[in-house]
Amino acid sequence: MRLGMIGLGRMGASMSTRLLRGGHALVVHDQSAEAVQRLVGLGATGSTTLQDFVAALALPRAIWLMVPAAVVDGVLDGLVPLLSPGDTVIDGGNSYYHDDLRRAAALEAKGIHYLDVGTSGGVAGLTRGYCQMVGGKDEAVAQLAPIFETLAPGAGVLTPTPGRKAGGGTAERGWLHCGPHGAGHFVKMVHNGIEYGIMAAYAEGLNILHHANVGKLQHEVDAETTPLRHPEHYQYALDLPEITELWRRGSVIGSWLLDLTAEALAADPQLDNFAGRVSDSGEGRWTVQAAIDAAVPAPVLSAALYARFGSRGEADFANRVQSAMRHEFGGHAEKAGPAPTSGG
Amino acid sequence: MRLGMIGLGRMGASMSTRLLRGGHALVVHDQSAEAVQRLVGLGATGSTTLQDFVAALALPRAIWLMVPAAVVDGVLDGLVPLLSPGDTVIDGGNSYYHDDLRRAAALEAKGIHYLDVGTSGGVAGLTRGYCQMVGGKDEAVAQLAPIFETLAPGAGVLTPTPGRKAGGGTAERGWLHCGPHGAGHFVKMVHNGIEYGIMAAYAEGLNILHHANVGKLQHEVDAETTPLRHPEHYQYALDLPEITELWRRGSVIGSWLLDLTAEALAADPQLDNFAGRVSDSGEGRWTVQAAIDAAVPAPVLSAALYARFGSRGEADFANRVQSAMRHEFGGHAEKAGPAPTSGG
Amino acid sequence: MRLGMIGLGRMGASMSTRLLRGGHALVVHDQSAEAVQRLVGLGATGSTTLQDFVAALALPRAIWLMVPAAVVDGVLDGLVPLLSPGDTVIDGGNSYYHDDLRRAAALEAKGIHYLDVGTSGGVAGLTRGYCQMVGGKDEAVAQLAPIFETLAPGAGVLTPTPGRKAGGGTAERGWLHCGPHGAGHFVKMVHNGIEYGIMAAYAEGLNILHHANVGKLQHEVDAETTPLRHPEHYQYALDLPEITELWRRGSVIGSWLLDLTAEALAADPQLDNFAGRVSDSGEGRWTVQAAIDAAVPAPVLSAALYARFGSRGEADFANRVQSAMRHEFGGHAEKAGPAPTSGG
Amino acid sequence: MRLGMIGLGRMGASMSTRLLRGGHALVVHDQSAEAVQRLVGLGATGSTTLQDFVAALALPRAIWLMVPAAVVDGVLDGLVPLLSPGDTVIDGGNSYYHDDLRRAAALEAKGIHYLDVGTSGGVAGLTRGYCQMVGGKDEAVAQLAPIFETLAPGAGVLTPTPGRKAGGGTAERGWLHCGPHGAGHFVKMVHNGIEYGIMAAYAEGLNILHHANVGKLQHEVDAETTPLRHPEHYQYALDLPEITELWRRGSVIGSWLLDLTAEALAADPQLDNFAGRVSDSGEGRWTVQAAIDAAVPAPVLSAALYARFGSRGEADFANRVQSAMRHEFGGHAEKAGPAPTSGG
Repeated sequence: MRLGMIGLGRMGASMSTRLLRGGHALVVHDQSAEAVQRLVGLGATGSTTLQDFVAALALPRAIWLMVPAAVVDGVLDGLVPLLSPGDTVIDGGNSYYHDDLRRAAALEAKGIHYLDVGTSGGVAGLTRGYCQMVGGKDEAVAQLAPIFETLAPGAGVLTPTPGRKAGGGTAERGWLHCGPHGAGHFVKMVHNGIEYGIMAAYAEGLNILHHANVGKLQHEVDAETTPLRHPEHYQYALDLPEITELWRRGSVIGSWLLDLTAEALAADPQLDNFAGRVSDSGEGRWTVQAAIDAAVPAPVLSAALYARFGSRGEADFANRVQSAMRHEFGGHAEKAGPAPTSGG
Repeated sequence: MRLGMIGLGRMGASMSTRLLRGGHALVVHDQSAEAVQRLVGLGATGSTTLQDFVAALALPRAIWLMVPAAVVDGVLDGLVPLLSPGDTVIDGGNSYYHDDLRRAAALEAKGIHYLDVGTSGGVAGLTRGYCQMVGGKDEAVAQLAPIFETLAPGAGVLTPTPGRKAGGGTAERGWLHCGPHGAGHFVKMVHNGIEYGIMAAYAEGLNILHHANVGKLQHEVDAETTPLRHPEHYQYALDLPEITELWRRGSVIGSWLLDLTAEALAADPQLDNFAGRVSDSGEGRWTVQAAIDAAVPAPVLSAALYARFGSRGEADFANRVQSAMRHEFGGHAEKAGPAPTSGG
Repeated sequence: MRLGMIGLGRMGASMSTRLLRGGHALVVHDQSAEAVQRLVGLGATGSTTLQDFVAALALPRAIWLMVPAAVVDGVLDGLVPLLSPGDTVIDGGNSYYHDDLRRAAALEAKGIHYLDVGTSGGVAGLTRGYCQMVGGKDEAVAQLAPIFETLAPGAGVLTPTPGRKAGGGTAERGWLHCGPHGAGHFVKMVHNGIEYGIMAAYAEGLNILHHANVGKLQHEVDAETTPLRHPEHYQYALDLPEITELWRRGSVIGSWLLDLTAEALAADPQLDNFAGRVSDSGEGRWTVQAAIDAAVPAPVLSAALYARFGSRGEADFANRVQSAMRHEFGGHAEKAGPAPTSGG
Repeated sequence: MRLGMIGLGRMGASMSTRLLRGGHALVVHDQSAEAVQRLVGLGATGSTTLQDFVAALALPRAIWLMVPAAVVDGVLDGLVPLLSPGDTVIDGGNSYYHDDLRRAAALEAKGIHYLDVGTSGGVAGLTRGYCQMVGGKDEAVAQLAPIFETLAPGAGVLTPTPGRKAGGGTAERGWLHCGPHGAGHFVKMVHNGIEYGIMAAYAEGLNILHHANVGKLQHEVDAETTPLRHPEHYQYALDLPEITELWRRGSVIGSWLLDLTAEALAADPQLDNFAGRVSDSGEGRWTVQAAIDAAVPAPVLSAALYARFGSRGEADFANRVQSAMRHEFGGHAEKAGPAPTSGG
C-alpha cells in the first residue's frame, strides 16, 4: 500500500527500507534533504515540504511519524492542517501514552484517525523485522495491517508457543492490536521498562565477574575500610567475551540482548570505547510512574533506571550529603583518589 | 566414554539420557531404585550400592554428582573412600564455590581430581543441550571434554557472534573451562543471579500490565489513601498471553525465559495455578554476597532476591513495625481487608 | 488572631486546640457536628454550614483547610463563592503541590490569597508543636505568621545548630516560608518521602534482629532450598523492646521515630496488634515521581514505597509469574508452607 | 575501677577521657607515643610496650581494645600471651561478630573472658555518652558494669518511654547486655545498617530538593533524551540549610543525624568541601549478609550500601556494559557532557 513516512533517522530510514523491499509505495519526508535522497535512491518518493509530502499521498492518507517524542506535537502542528477527514496518522516513536490520548481526541475531532505504535527491534529490525504494539480503533488498525505485516518479523522466525489457543492471531507474526488509544505505547513503555531491568541485570552480573579478581588487589587497613575477609575467594581472572558467548548456548539466560552483549565484548573486551554514561529516553521513567500510580512494586525496574541516572553523576549531591554526615558524627575525612578497580 | 552418574532427579536423569543417546557408557546410582531402573531401561548400568557403582567403573574413574548442594558432602563422605588416585569427581549441581575450593583441596590430597561444573538449561536441556561452566585443572577438564561436548548444545544452534576472535574455542559449542577450582560454580552463581534479575524484570513489567485497568476500580477516599489522580489513564484490559507471544518476535526483550513465560500464560492466562511463593536455591544469595565482598553495586539482583523473600512472607515483621510507627505518630489504624487487586 | 478551621479530624482538632490555647479566636467547621461541639467546648465558635462559618469570620478572612487531599477541591467548590477579595485560604493537609499551583492561580484570579502549608508532627503536635513548611506569597505569609508561630514548637525545644548564619529566621522556631506556591507542599512531600525511607530502614533492621534466631529453626534439605550454612551464627534471641530503648540513648540513630518505635514495642513486644498492611497517603509516590522527573536516583525512598505496596499484596501477580517461569524451565513446583500473607 | 585501653584514635581517646573524668584509673597504650602522652596529660598511666601496659594493670585485668577491626587479631596475638586466667578482654570496635565467636572460644580455652561491645556515638560521645551494645557472659558483663555506666549517656538525657515494663534495666541509661558472645556486635552491626539507610534517606531527599529548580535549566531535544514534561513544576530554589534546620523542630523526621546535617549545611551550604566518595566500614555489608542468610528482605539497607559503592566508581563497568548494549541495538552513541565523576 501507499504510506507516508516522516522522520528518516536510524529507525525511520531502516523501516522505510524494509517497507520498500516489501513492495509498498513510500513517500518520505525529513528535515535532512540528504536523508530523503538516500531513500529516493531505494525507490521512495521524496518531498521537500510537508505540502509536497501530503500532496503525493492518495486519499485516505496514511502517514507514519518516526520522530523524537519531543517533536511530535510540533510536526503535527504543521501536518494536521494539511490533512483530510479519513486520513490516518501513526505515531511509531516513543511517545508517552498520555500524549496519545490527547492527540487521538484532538485528531478525531477533525475526523482524522490516530494510531500509536510502539516499535521495538532497533537497527537490526531492517533484517529481523520489528515488533509492533498497536493502540487505536479497529478500523484504522485494519487499514494499516499490510504495513504492520511487512514490518513485522513474520511467523517463520520462531517456533510457535506450545499450547497457544487455536486461531492464531497476529502476535505470532510480530504485531498486535493491544487495545484502544494509548495501549500500543503503554505496552511498549512497559516493554522498555523491562528492557532496562534486563540490561541492568546483565550489567551487574558482568560487573561482579569483572571484579572476581579483587582478592589479588591491595587494600588499605584502617578503621574506615573493611578488609576483604577472604581474598582467596576472589582470585579469578575471567574472560567475559567467552563467558557471554557461552551463555548464549543452552543457558536459562540466553536472549537477544545477550547476543548483542557478546558481540560488543568480542569487539572490545574491556569496553574501553565507552565512558559509562547511560542515557534514558523516557519509557523507563514512565514505567515506574505507572507502577506507582497502580501501586505495583517495581524495585528492579526502578533500580535499573536509577543506575542510569547515577551513571550520569546525578547522585553527586546525595553522596556529598552522606560524606558530610560522616564527617560530622565520626570526624571521617573522605578517602582520596579513585576507588581501586580491577580494570579499565 | 564411561561415566558414573550419582543423582537421577530431574536434572541428573535427563542429562544421563542425553549422554546415553550420545553413545557414552553410563553407570548410574540413586537412592531411588525406581529412578535407577528407568535409566537402566535406557541402556545405563544400574547399581544398588556405592560399592557396586564404583566397581562398575574402569580406572581412572569419572563420577558426576548431580545432587542437591546440601547433600554433596554427605555423598562424598561415602564415595571418596572407595576411589583411587587418578579418579575424577565432578560436581555438576549448584554448590557454593567456597565448597569447591575446600573439596578440591581435600580430594587432591588423596590424588583425586575435582571439577566444578555449573550446568544451566533446565529440564529442556535433554533436547536443547546444557550450558556448562567448568572450573578445575586442565588435565581433568581435557579428560572430561567428550562428556561436556555431548551435554552441550553444540555449535549449530545459533549463528556465531560477529567479530569473535579467530580460533573458536569451546564456548561456541556451549561449554567453557572458566578457570581454576570454583570458577565454574562462580560463573554459574552469577549466571543465576542474573537469571533472578531478568525474571523479576519480566514479572514486574507484567504485573504493571496486569494492573493497567486500575482506573476502572473503586478506591476509597480518606486521609490514609491517595486517590488515583487520572483513572482515565488506566483503563486497559490487556491480553498478557498475546503480549508475551508478541514480544518473542523481533523485540529487544526476546529471550528463552520470555518464550517460557508465553508458554505458561498460554496454558494459564491468570496463572491461577500458582500461589506466588517463589523459592530460591542459593545462587542469588551468593551472587549478592560476592557483589558486596567486591564492593560492586547490585541493586537489581538484590531487589530480585528480596522479592522472592517477600513472596514467602519474610517481610511481615518489618511491615508490622511500620504499621506500629504509623499508629504511634499519626494514630493511623491499619486498613482492613485484602488490597484491591485487578485480578486473580 | 481570628482563624477559620475546616476539618476537625485528628490533625485539625489538635491543631485547633493548640491555637485556642495560644489565645487565637477560632471558628470551626466539620461535617461531624460532634467534632464541632468538642472544639466549641474548648472555646471555639462552631458552625453548621459553610455560610455560617464564613459569616463568623471578619474580613479579611483567613481559613485553614485540614481535610484529606482528595476532598480539598470539593470543599473549595463550596467555599470560594462565599469568599471576598483579600481573604486567604490555607491548605494545611497533604495536597499534591501540582494542585497548589492550579488552585493558587484560580483563587488569585478572584483576588483570594492561597497558601500551602505542609504540616508535620502527628497527633503529638498538640504538645510538641507542628513543623510547618509554607509556600505562597510574602504578604499572605506575613499575615498568617501569628498562627504559624503558635502552631510551631518554638525555639526552646532544641539547642540552635552551631554555626548557623546570624539573624536567625523562623526555621529555628519550627516554621519556614520555603518559596512560592507549592513550595510548602513540595518540601513536605520530600519530608514524607524521607520519612518512608527512615521508617523502612528501622523496620528492615528490626526484622533482621527478629530473625537472629533462625539458626535454631529446622530447614528443609532439597534442591529448591539453600541450607543456612552457619546456623551457629544465628542463635540470638534478642529483646527488641530493650534494644530500641537502648538505641535512643547516645547512638547515631536516635530519632523521634525511634522513640515511638520503642514505645510501640514496649506495649506490644511482638507487634501482634498489627497485620502489617502499610498504607501510603501519596507523598512517598510523589517524591519518587519528582526524583524521576529530575533524574535524581532515589533507590532507598523507592524501596520503602514498594515495601508498602508489597505489604498490601500488590506483588502477588509478579510472584506468580516467577513461580510459573520456574515451573517452566526447572519443573519446580511451589513449596508448600504458610499461606501467602499480606506480607506477600 | 582500673581499665586498660589499647587504641587512642578518635574514639579510643575520647572514651578514655570520659572514663578519666568519671573517676576511673586508666592505663593506656597506642602505637603513637604522642597519643599516649595526650592521655597521660589528662591523668592516665601511659605505657610504651604491651609488657609495660599489662604490668600496670592489677589482676584480674580488664583491657578494652579500640582499634580498627582489621588489626584486632594482630593485637590479640601480642597481648594474650601476657594475660592470666580471669582477665577480661573487651573489643569495643567494629569487629564482625563471627570473629567474636571465634575469639571468645580461643580466649576461654585459656580462661580469659571476652566481651564484644558495639559502641555508637561518634566523636560527640565524649559529652553525650556512648550507646553500648554488649555481648558475652554474665560474670564478665557484671564486672565491667561500672565502665559501661560511665561511658553511657545515663538516664537523664531523655524521658523514659511511656509504658515500659517496670524494673527498668540498663537500656534506659544507654547500655545493654544483648546476649551471648557476638550479640553486642550483631546488634551494633544492624544498628549501623540502619544508620546507612537513614543517612541515604536524608541524602536522597535533599538531593531531590537540590534539583527542585531543574525546570529552569535547558535540556536537549533528541530521541535519546526525554524532555521534562512540566518544567513549571520544578522552579524552586530551596534553601537547604534552613529546611534542615526547620525539620529539626517538631517534624516526624527529627533525629540526631538531621541535627548534624543541619550543622554541616550551615557551615557549607553547597557541601563543596566534599567530593562525595562515601566510605563504608563493613557493618552495612554484614547487615545485608545477615539479612540474606536469614532470608529477610532488606531493600532499603542494600540500596544505601550500593549508593556508597557507586559513589566510589564501582558501578563503572556495569555502566559501560549498558552503554555498549545500547550502541549494539540502537546505534546509540553515548552523550557527551560532564566527565564521569566519582558519583558515577
